[in-house]
Amino acid sequence: MLSKAQIKYIQSLQHKKNRQKSSQYIAEGDKIVQELLLAGMPVKAVYATAGWISDHAEVLKRLDASAVYTVEEAVLKQLSALTTPNKAMALLDMPAASAQLPGEGTLVLALEAIQDPGNMGTIIRIADWFGIREIVCSPDCVDVYNPKTIQATMGSIARVRISETDIKSFLENTSLPSYAATLHGKDITAFSKLTEGIILIGNEGRGLSEEVTAAATHQITIPRLGGAESLNAAVATGIICGRLLI
Amino acid sequence: MLSKAQIKYIQSLQHKKNRQKSSQYIAEGDKIVQELLLAGMPVKAVYATAGWISDHAEVLKRLDASAVYTVEEAVLKQLSALTTPNKAMALLDMPAASAQLPGEGTLVLALEAIQDPGNMGTIIRIADWFGIREIVCSPDCVDVYNPKTIQATMGSIARVRISETDIKSFLENTSLPSYAATLHGKDITAFSKLTEGIILIGNEGRGLSEEVTAAATHQITIPRLGGAESLNAAVATGIICGRLLI
Repeated sequence: MLSKAQIKYIQSLQHKKNRQKSSQYIAEGDKIVQELLLAGMPVKAVYATAGWISDHAEVLKRLDASAVYTVEEAVLKQLSALTTPNKAMALLDMPAASAQLPGEGTLVLALEAIQDPGNMGTIIRIADWFGIREIVCSPDCVDVYNPKTIQATMGSIARVRISETDIKSFLENTSLPSYAATLHGKDITAFSKLTEGIILIGNEGRGLSEEVTAAATHQITIPRLGGAESLNAAVATGIICGRLLI
Repeated sequence: MLSKAQIKYIQSLQHKKNRQKSSQYIAEGDKIVQELLLAGMPVKAVYATAGWISDHAEVLKRLDASAVYTVEEAVLKQLSALTTPNKAMALLDMPAASAQLPGEGTLVLALEAIQDPGNMGTIIRIADWFGIREIVCSPDCVDVYNPKTIQATMGSIARVRISETDIKSFLENTSLPSYAATLHGKDITAFSKLTEGIILIGNEGRGLSEEVTAAATHQITIPRLGGAESLNAAVATGIICGRLLI
C-alpha cells in the first residue's frame, strides 16, 4: 500500500520545479508503462490496479517485486495529472542532461519554444517514427517530462535522447547542415532525402526566431495550395520529416 | 444585452442533438470569428467584448448591427464550451448536408470513425492547407460542429465542404482512385503527385475498417524508420498529403 507521504510525493511531480529537484517524473497509461519497462528505462516503481498487475506479470518481472504497488482505481485517480486516469502509472528517473553535440551522419530535431505539451509529445513520437534519435529543445520549450507530454509520446520518450540547449549556439557549433521551417523558404519538394542534418521547428504561434532562422544553412517551406494560414507545429514536423527523411 | 433565453440557447448548442435540431452551431475565438465573417459564412450573431467589437468594426460591417452583441467577459465564460474562453463567439447556420458525389479531377479526404474533436479540426485545417475542398465523414465520426473541432480548424471550416456518408458505398459509387492509409500498404514514396482521388484515413486506434480498405483501389503506408508503433491520425494525414499532393 502507498503511504500518505508517497502519494504526496507522486502528486508533487505534476509540477516542473519538483521534478527538477528530484530528477524523477511520472508516466501514466497502460501502453506507455509497458513500453518504458520493455525499453529498459529506469523505472523505479509501478502503481497499478490488481487486474493490470496480473495481466502484465511477464513485463513486471523486470522490476523488483517491492517496486510494484497494487493501488485502487480511486487512488490512481488521486495520483493522476490527467483528466482520464489510467490503470497504471510509473515513477522514473530522468536521464542526465547531456551537452554532447551530435556528430556527422546524425539526424537531429531542434525545437524552439514549443509551448503545448500535447504538441511536444506528438513531435517526439514523430521523431521516433522517422528514426531521429536526438531532439534538442530551447530552454523555453514546455518541459518534456510534463505528464501530458509523456502521455502524448505513447512510449517514444524511451527511444529518443532529449537535451536542452540554446539553439543558436548549438547551430554555431556544429558542421551539420540545418533546415529551418519558415513560411518563406525554399519549397521542401526541391530537397532530396537527407542522411544527416538538423530540422528546426519553432513556436506554435510565431514560428522560429529571426536569429535562429538566420543561423540555419537552409530555410524550408511546405507549399500551400489552399486557404489555411498555417499548420499545427506537430503536423508541420510530420510533413517535413515525411519529405526529407523517407 | 443577451436574454436568459438566448444564453440558454447558446449553451444548448454545446450538445450535438441540439445542434442537429436547430441546424446552428457556435464558433469561438478571436481569429476564427474573423475568418468566418471574411469568408462570408452564414454568421447569424456575434457575441464579443466591447474591446473586441471596437477593434473589429470593419469586419463587423458585414453583419446587421442588431446581430452584434456586446457581452461581458464573465458572460462569455458562461457561454463557452472551452476551458479557455475567448473574447468573441459567433452563431452560425450549418450548411445543408449534401449527397452530391465529387466528380472527376476532384481531391477528396474521406474519414472513417475519427473520434477526437481536436484531431478532426486539425485534419480539416490540413485539407484546407493542401487545397482539398471536399471532406466526407462516416456517420460514426465525431461531429464536425463540436466546439473543440471548430476551434481546432482555425477557420478552415469556412473553406472546406464537409458531408456525411457511408464510406464503403461512397467508394463503390465513384470512378475516382482511392488511397487507403494502412500499416501494410505500398510505400507512399512510390506514388507520384495526385491530381484527383480520395485519401482515406481511419480511426485513431484501429485505423480503417477491413471493408473500407478492401473497397479502395490502393493501400498506402508511411514507411517507418524508428520505433514508434503508430502516428497520430492528423499527423499521418499531413504526411500523406505532403507526399501525394505537392
